[in-house]
Amino acid sequence: MSGREPAIRVTLLPRDTNPHGTIFGGVILSYIDQAGAVVAHQHGASRVVTVAMDKVVFHAPVYVGDLVSFYGELVRIGRTSIIVKVTVEAAPPGAAGPGRRVTEAVITYVNVDRYGVPTPILEAPSAKTPGPSPASTDQGSQA
Amino acid sequence: MSGREPAIRVTLLPRDTNPHGTIFGGVILSYIDQAGAVVAHQHGASRVVTVAMDKVVFHAPVYVGDLVSFYGELVRIGRTSIIVKVTVEAAPPGAAGPGRRVTEAVITYVNVDRYGVPTPILEAPSAKTPGPSPASTDQGSQA
Amino acid sequence: MSGREPAIRVTLLPRDTNPHGTIFGGVILSYIDQAGAVVAHQHGASRVVTVAMDKVVFHAPVYVGDLVSFYGELVRIGRTSIIVKVTVEAAPPGAAGPGRRVTEAVITYVNVDRYGVPTPILEAPSAKTPGPSPASTDQGSQA
Amino acid sequence: MSGREPAIRVTLLPRDTNPHGTIFGGVILSYIDQAGAVVAHQHGASRVVTVAMDKVVFHAPVYVGDLVSFYGELVRIGRTSIIVKVTVEAAPPGAAGPGRRVTEAVITYVNVDRYGVPTPILEAPSAKTPGPSPASTDQGSQA
Amino acid sequence: MSGREPAIRVTLLPRDTNPHGTIFGGVILSYIDQAGAVVAHQHGASRVVTVAMDKVVFHAPVYVGDLVSFYGELVRIGRTSIIVKVTVEAAPPGAAGPGRRVTEAVITYVNVDRYGVPTPILEAPSAKTPGPSPASTDQGSQA
Amino acid sequence: MSGREPAIRVTLLPRDTNPHGTIFGGVILSYIDQAGAVVAHQHGASRVVTVAMDKVVFHAPVYVGDLVSFYGELVRIGRTSIIVKVTVEAAPPGAAGPGRRVTEAVITYVNVDRYGVPTPILEAPSAKTPGPSPASTDQGSQA
Repeated sequence: MSGREPAIRVTLLPRDTNPHGTIFGGVILSYIDQAGAVVAHQHGASRVVTVAMDKVVFHAPVYVGDLVSFYGELVRIGRTSIIVKVTVEAAPPGAAGPGRRVTEAVITYVNVDRYGVPTPILEAPSAKTPGPSPASTDQGSQA
Repeated sequence: MSGREPAIRVTLLPRDTNPHGTIFGGVILSYIDQAGAVVAHQHGASRVVTVAMDKVVFHAPVYVGDLVSFYGELVRIGRTSIIVKVTVEAAPPGAAGPGRRVTEAVITYVNVDRYGVPTPILEAPSAKTPGPSPASTDQGSQA
Repeated sequence: MSGREPAIRVTLLPRDTNPHGTIFGGVILSYIDQAGAVVAHQHGASRVVTVAMDKVVFHAPVYVGDLVSFYGELVRIGRTSIIVKVTVEAAPPGAAGPGRRVTEAVITYVNVDRYGVPTPILEAPSAKTPGPSPASTDQGSQA
Repeated sequence: MSGREPAIRVTLLPRDTNPHGTIFGGVILSYIDQAGAVVAHQHGASRVVTVAMDKVVFHAPVYVGDLVSFYGELVRIGRTSIIVKVTVEAAPPGAAGPGRRVTEAVITYVNVDRYGVPTPILEAPSAKTPGPSPASTDQGSQA
Repeated sequence: MSGREPAIRVTLLPRDTNPHGTIFGGVILSYIDQAGAVVAHQHGASRVVTVAMDKVVFHAPVYVGDLVSFYGELVRIGRTSIIVKVTVEAAPPGAAGPGRRVTEAVITYVNVDRYGVPTPILEAPSAKTPGPSPASTDQGSQA
Repeated sequence: MSGREPAIRVTLLPRDTNPHGTIFGGVILSYIDQAGAVVAHQHGASRVVTVAMDKVVFHAPVYVGDLVSFYGELVRIGRTSIIVKVTVEAAPPGAAGPGRRVTEAVITYVNVDRYGVPTPILEAPSAKTPGPSPASTDQGSQA
């Protein structure tokens, strides 16, 4: 791990492989899309649709068992749209350090209301700090 | 997000739900198992098998769209075994703060060799800091 | 097979494996959670949430192709909660006998209404014996 | 449950649905194929390929949350082939009795060696009764 | 590829395999069910349930990486039911020609309304040719 | 359907949705990656890795139940690399015509040998026309 906080971090399994036995690129792209949306939400978007993805570069393959971290950074925020760069790093189990950079992409999201109409992005909520909910009511996970 | 570095962090989707529409407990347990193994590897385990899980408590349901973070901390390390506590926090998209604590568990792993025979855990590699591989050779993801 | 009636019984596939090629523990835990809920329902619960899991012990690995049976037994039934022990047995295809015991766990469920509020568990319906629905109306499976 | 022993028994989840919200027929067919193979193995087949499926009739839809049991019975056993009838019953959680019959099918398997060449089916191992493995060596599930 | 237009065409991955490493028959059956429904809709059905499947013959195994095409042809159309034959062809990546015929099946669907009641099949819409929607409103995919 | 031959064509299910109930963009991206690789193989590539994806534009959401077609066209072929444009069209069940254009992308693949080393792309096999394998040996699908 790296000291930075990932938007998404997963361990990949045999079910995520392509016919060659390495991780299927589509799996990586799926997590990139989610990671960028996590960052868009952190900057005030309430409900996002992906409108474009660019500069997706695959530098190196990802292997089964790798711990894969998706880091996002804000590129630009407009009135209703937001652009996020996602950088993907992969490391074998227990590797020290941040891992090798395997993929990166730039994604454009638009903030929409529940009818899909573009809506202004409000001030980022990350300024507020509510803390953990103090009164979790122990209702459990539904089996 | 929280400033701490999660072992695993994911966004959950409709395919992860139980018949009641909240996230299926088995999905949470799967990620807990992976998160604990990530931490075991960080402390020097090279290949782990899960031998026990205890004190799994589900405090609150997890919802579709939640960003779910799995934090691990070392409980005890033996010659061939390692015990990790995993704490799970969930937050709706864009929530500020670390989210509500939804689940926790204590997992015991044994370090094994490739034949499944218990093997001593070596000194944690996290002392070394190799950094990112400087010469990634751009071979891409296999489609 | 064994003469006893399993709560859940499945054959496991390559998509259920961990990076070492044996069955991923999270897959087993998912079925344990479901198996315990099946037994809770048989004892009168109408809608359950998992609140705790304990004494999960993994005795032996499960292999691709194994027929895996999840047997549940009632441990204790309270006014709104119910505790079930699940024992997991695995056997290679065609093995005679009940298979090797691979995992066990004790799970606590709470019976809730549709708003998630704990609700008394009614008398077990297993006393009544309606039999198969005699007038199935052949409406088919929706493609 | 029913007193009979199912070849396969599962609880179905939202991820198993078709666009109409009932269980996707393909999911049911997948389990039927597995259930028939379980029965073929019980009658001495060592490695089977499915060569035909017939008389698949869908009587009624299956719903999310249903406990679905797949019962197999031997129809005919030849030198290298074996025919199994699978009957599928579904019941809502906690339903007493064997549930409603939802689907049935007749499947023909051929017993093959590891090169895919048809091979005689040996005497069924179900005559032998080895019992549970007495010395499970607690090596755990691999995370 | 073949010059004919498939109802469904997919590349299959390691997650689709059976314990022997070839493609799981249940995966093929799932796509057959979908392919037949595609053809039923092309002939005027609005919402179909699968009521029967027959003459499913598996001629040859399908391998990881194969491009698999599902071709459907109308067998018979009744007032509320429709019978479709699906032929499945598989080819390794880049193979010229239509591939080897691996499976075939005949499926009967019934057209139903939203309450599951059989409903007459209207004249096939394939006579009309609206063309692509000229004013797509670029609302994107929801991340 | 459209008269043109798709590289990939699928029906999408509830398990493919995002938290908003439309199809998850990552699912679409996965099929785009596969569709482009299908086209690369048709033009002589033997084993491809994805090295870049660009100009991914999401024009409109895709809905559960839609028939989604992925069409590929060759953009440029180099000595070891090949660029493919993929256009995605979606149509509700039974819609006449080619459907609405929902997404497009340009993908660059590199042809590699089994060690991942870039390798010249040979003359496209689509010139040769072997036809269907005349002697399929009916070995069936492995259950």
